[in-house]
Formats: sequence, C-alpha cells, structure tokens
Amino acid sequence: MNKPNIVILGAGYGGLTTAVKLQKELGVNDAHITLVNKNDYHYESTWLHENAAGTLHHDRSRVKIQDIINSAKINFVQDTVTAIKPDEKKVELEDGMLEYDYLVVGLGFEAATFGIPGLLENAFTIGSINKARLIREHIEYQFAKYNNEAEPKPERLTFVVGGGGFTGIEFLGELANRIPELCEEYDIDRSKVRIINVEAMDTIMPGFDPALIEYAMNSLEARGVEFKLGAFLKEVREDGITIEQNGEKQDIPSLTTVWAAGVRANHLVEESGLEHNRGKVDVTPELRAPSHEDVFVVGDCALIWNKETDRPYPPTAQIAMQEAEVCAHNIAALVKGGELEHFEFNDRGTVCSLGHNDAMGAVLGGKKLYGWTATVMKKMIDNRALFKIGGLGLVLKKGKLNIFTK
Amino acid sequence: MNKPNIVILGAGYGGLTTAVKLQKELGVNDAHITLVNKNDYHYESTWLHENAAGTLHHDRSRVKIQDIINSAKINFVQDTVTAIKPDEKKVELEDGMLEYDYLVVGLGFEAATFGIPGLLENAFTIGSINKARLIREHIEYQFAKYNNEAEPKPERLTFVVGGGGFTGIEFLGELANRIPELCEEYDIDRSKVRIINVEAMDTIMPGFDPALIEYAMNSLEARGVEFKLGAFLKEVREDGITIEQNGEKQDIPSLTTVWAAGVRANHLVEESGLEHNRGKVDVTPELRAPSHEDVFVVGDCALIWNKETDRPYPPTAQIAMQEAEVCAHNIAALVKGGELEHFEFNDRGTVCSLGHNDAMGAVLGGKKLYGWTATVMKKMIDNRALFKIGGLGLVLKKGKLNIFTK
Repeated sequence: MNKPNIVILGAGYGGLTTAVKLQKELGVNDAHITLVNKNDYHYESTWLHENAAGTLHHDRSRVKIQDIINSAKINFVQDTVTAIKPDEKKVELEDGMLEYDYLVVGLGFEAATFGIPGLLENAFTIGSINKARLIREHIEYQFAKYNNEAEPKPERLTFVVGGGGFTGIEFLGELANRIPELCEEYDIDRSKVRIINVEAMDTIMPGFDPALIEYAMNSLEARGVEFKLGAFLKEVREDGITIEQNGEKQDIPSLTTVWAAGVRANHLVEESGLEHNRGKVDVTPELRAPSHEDVFVVGDCALIWNKETDRPYPPTAQIAMQEAEVCAHNIAALVKGGELEHFEFNDRGTVCSLGHNDAMGAVLGGKKLYGWTATVMKKMIDNRALFKIGGLGLVLKKGKLNIFTK
Repeated sequence: MNKPNIVILGAGYGGLTTAVKLQKELGVNDAHITLVNKNDYHYESTWLHENAAGTLHHDRSRVKIQDIINSAKINFVQDTVTAIKPDEKKVELEDGMLEYDYLVVGLGFEAATFGIPGLLENAFTIGSINKARLIREHIEYQFAKYNNEAEPKPERLTFVVGGGGFTGIEFLGELANRIPELCEEYDIDRSKVRIINVEAMDTIMPGFDPALIEYAMNSLEARGVEFKLGAFLKEVREDGITIEQNGEKQDIPSLTTVWAAGVRANHLVEESGLEHNRGKVDVTPELRAPSHEDVFVVGDCALIWNKETDRPYPPTAQIAMQEAEVCAHNIAALVKGGELEHFEFNDRGTVCSLGHNDAMGAVLGGKKLYGWTATVMKKMIDNRALFKIGGLGLVLKKGKLNIFTK
C-alpha cells in the first residue's frame, strides 16, 4: 500500500510523452501517477505558427489529454503550477498542493524579451493555443479595419516578425502564404501589405547550411518578405518598432509585431531553488536535477550539452520526446528496480517549414532537402510526433496526411 | 446621334434593377446609359446582418456588377458620387463629372444617429460589405482576446444591439446562433456572454402582429438575448453605453455596440437642392422629383406614401425593386415614346428572419407564418431578389437553395 507518488508537471512533448511511456511501463499497483496541466489539452507547440498565421485550425494542433492517457493509471489534474518546492517534495498549484516522491518537470518555455522596452506589452508571442489564435484574429482584424477608415493606415498592413530563427522563419512561411488570401477576403491590393523580418544576426537560421539559408530567403523574398538582418530591435510600441541597423536608428510603423526570437525555460524553475544555469536545470545523464535526485527535468527546462560543440542542444520537440523516453524508463526502474539509462541525443536532423508548399532542412547524415521533398519529410516528422503520443489513432485524426496540399 | 444620357447613381436594389430593366427596354442606339457605383459589386443589403454576425460569408451576398449588366448597353463607372447638381444637370464624382438628360438617384441609406453622443464614433452600423465584415471580425477578436488577459473583461463578451426593428431583430437572430460557435472556438463558457437589445419603444417590431412579436421574443430569449424595452440610448462609449429606462440611468459595459435602429437617405440628396422631406424626395406618382422632372428617385432616397395609413412605407428591398421597374419603364417611355406609369406598391408581406433556423412574418392576405415555414418563405424572398437582378444563374450561384440548413 506504500505506492510512490509520481507527479508530472506539464503535458507538452516532454511531460506527456513521459506520462504515456510510464503508463506502459508501470502497473496500477506500482505507483500513483499524477499529471498536472493548465489546459485539458496537449498542443503541438511546433505547429502553433500555423495556427497563428491562420493556415491551420488550432483544433488540428491539440488533443484532449483524457483521450491520450489511461485514466485508470494516471490521475489528471487540470490546474496551474504556481511553485515547485523541491526541499519539501511538494508542488503548489493555484487550487491545491501535491506531494511527490518523484517529480518530472516539463513546464516548457516562455518568451525571453531580453529587456527590450515595450516588447512584453506590445508584441505577440506564439506560445500557446490562446496566443496563436489571438495572433490569427489580430492580423485578420487589421485587414477588416483597413477599408473602413477614412484614411487607411499603412501600419495596419505592416507585419513585423522579430527573429530569423526557426520559429520566426516557419511563421514567415505561413504568413507569406496567408496574406494573399486575406487580401482577397478584404479586397485589398497585395502591394499594400509589408511583411518584415528583423534579425540581429547577419543571417537567418544561424548554424544551418548556407545553401539552405539561401534557399529559405529566396523562397520567402519571392513571396514578399523583407529581411532586415544585423538589425537590433530597440523598442516595440503599440503602433510601431524602432530598429538599429548599421548604427542607424529607424522607426517602422506597424500595428502587429510578433516576437519569435527568444525563449527561456518556465520561470518557475529559476524560482524553485533547483540548481540551475540561466533558468534551466543542467541535468545529470539520468536527467535528474543535480541538487535533487528525485526531480527529473525534460524538455525546454532541461539543459543538455552537445559534447562535440560544447554548446547546449537547442530545445526542440525531438529532443524533449527522446528525453521523456529515458526519464520514464529511469523512474520505472527506480520504482520497480532496474538499471538507470543515460540520455544520448540521437539527432535525426531538422526540417524547417516555409509554408505548406515549401521547406528546407538537413536529415540524418547531413543530406540537404529542399522544396517538396522537404515538405513531405516535415509532415512525416509532424506525424511521427503525434504517433509517439497518441498512436496511429491520433495520426489519423490530427495528422498531416495529405502530402500534396495540407 | 443625339442620344440622351441616362445616369444611374448607385447599384443597390433600386439602381441596379433600374439598369437591368433599362437594358432590356432600350436598344444600343436609344440612349447612353451610365451606372455609377462606389464598389465594383452589388450587395444584398438585406443579407448584411448575416455577414456581420459571421453566419454567411460576404461573398455570398455580393455579385460583380459586370456579371449583371450588358456592357454593350451600359457603361459602368466605379467611382464615388460627391454631389448632385440638378439645376446644372450634372453629377460630381470623386474622379470626374457626368452630365445627364435623365438621372436616377438610388444612393441608398446611411445610419441615422439622432444626435446620440458617441454613437457615430463608437458604434458599428451594418451598412456595407466593409462594415459587415468589420463587425464579424470585431466580435471574433473580442473572443480571441478574452482568454489572453490576466483579468478577462466581461465587457468583451457583452454585445449590445441598438434597435428592435427589422434589422436589429434579424441581426440578433444570427448573433444568437453564432455566439455558441464562437464559445466553442475559443473555449469560453456560453454563460459568460451577454447579448442585449436596447429599444426605445415598448415593443420590438412595432406594427407587427402581437403574436408574431411574442414569437420572435420567445425565440431570441430562448437563445439568451436580453431585451431592454422602453430604454433610451443616451450615450455610446468605446467601452460601454448608458441607457435610460423607467427614468433611471444605467451603464452597461460593452466593447461592442451595433447600431441597427435608424436609417436615413444618403445625405447627398439633402445637399443636392432637390426638394426633399427630411432628406428624402417625396416623389411624384411617376417617381420623379417634384422640383426636377428629369430626376427619378428610387429606393431608400424616395418617399412613398401609404394612403391607407397616411404614413410613408418603410424602405425595403421589395419596394425599391418595384419602384425600379416603374422608373425604368417611365424613362424608356420618355426616350422612345409611350405612356408613363404611376407607381403603386404591391405589398407581398414581410418575413423577418430569426437566424437560419427560425423566422416569422405575414404574407399576402395577412397570413401569419412561424418557424420552418417562415424560414422557407424568407429564403424564397431572398432568392426572388437575386432572380430579379441576375436571373436563374445568379440564384444558382448565390441563392439560399438549401431550405433545411443554409
């Protein structure tokens, strides 16, 4: 009757995959498992840019947690975590408190604003279903308003995307496809709309092969995206931004700035008292917090080092789900007995979408992919994530099955 | 070679029907006919409340003018009329000037605000395709924002409709159907949303049979509409309204007020120097302006008296299209010779929609209709208007052919 309490915080890629794997590995009598999540659904955070652009409905990107977990084995609590107290082995929720023997922290990311004035107040971030559909509606609202003003404002039709990294570029790809549809819907000439990417580095997608970067820029520029590289975002206002490029400041009037440039781990990690490195837990090979061995950390809250480059791996769904497999195995081993595993990232490559009809990336062995081949690979990657979480049923329900259109 | 210039202002029900009938009655050598309209499309203004609620796409409510008129006979000018100069027999446009021998004024309605403070600035009106889709997007934007605020604002989900007349009630019917869909789309409980109708009279739909009024109120109240009758709108602010009811003032916080209570004729009529009665031309039986017999007026700019009640007929699509038939006949008679006709309104009854699945009204002989029977009749009326303008082709393209759903 002395079953250990396993508490999993967050039903993102890391937390939910851990839960799904644990419910396979452990029997009802082995442990109490509790999964805590703010919403009653899991969402594919790597698809949110499509929901935000309005090219994919958000219901395609989410799935009810109750449809994924086995409620005989896992107790789902819909609540918001307010504090982690590792020294007391408990977690505070908005509406209660949970004690644990083993804790899995999978609380994901939040936007990093780097102290840029006005960013937090005036820029949108693509961080949840709620935020994604707000961006979608905000953009459409600008089009709806444009022709109703005595003096149509060009800044209504100027869309700024901050950041030329993975999320920024994928969002630009969708937006560049969506804008012509909105122009048609609202009888607005495409030439009146500007899409501007602001990136502080001299290149988009740093770390990617130059040929892939060139391909992505060509694809987006052909659809009207303007790149401002080496441009620092100095301020975001409700009605515009200020950038500094080549030492010169420039104001760009815009009623829509989407910030896709920086993420950090959930602030609860930093506040928890767990030993951390700039907000993330620099986990042991078993994925435990060095300061508290009953705490496992997966996903965007965990820091995993690439020993070849001596830099951390970027936080992705791919690495989060691989971590979850090891995390679940290790907790099961602690509960039932067995060997603990060490985590090794198996990089299967990365494909960056440029809209439903274009993509680029590099897969296993560094092979470069472009265009249609890359879009097919991207959809397979998206479907694979669904499969790992909800099996074939979920792929058939929410998957990107039409490789020709979407 | 001395062909008369016929200029038709406005491609609403009155103007466009006049044009369509004239192109049948007159040959290419009989007259120069010019049709002026702000947009390159005609819209079904009696359907706009559906576009505004988001229950029918606005493309279903409009048709390209070039698809309706015979361009060998009618010269279409897309421009905005800025002034009518009947003494000089000319019309000023934003980008030019037109001279006429016969003028048809069919410039439609605009919102009457009765001097209510803030109404013009802060309330929406359902007066064009542009305005209808702005209302649709404004409403949806409130839902999208609601769950993104630290403190969700109830006024975001409070929707005020000013006026319990025909347009107000039809809009309420659509809105009451649309709100549950939006609640589902944005994960919001229906109980958080209020729909409030403010009407200064003690009843909605004045002049309608009490049994029909009772039916409409029951239908709307069952879907959550709150009626505030005998309530005067005293002020509209961006974030709410003030009403006075039973001598008491009350503030209602709301970010959305749609004003559907009053219309007046296009202000250009009043400014033209044509003799008018509160902005409308009290036309002769031939539908001419009494002060200028070369000017015909149709639709919402014309005043037609019901001799039985000694009150003007309310402006409807039905009366506008009947006027257009007589107007076109009379102009053709003046051009080619023939008898001028006198206009007599043939009231075929009125059906008021309460959403796609409910309606009420009275048809020829005063027979009352409710529910499904009335919705079928309403759709037939809508289709008949399309038929008169664009024939069977237009009915098949844009008509409300599915009498079971929409």
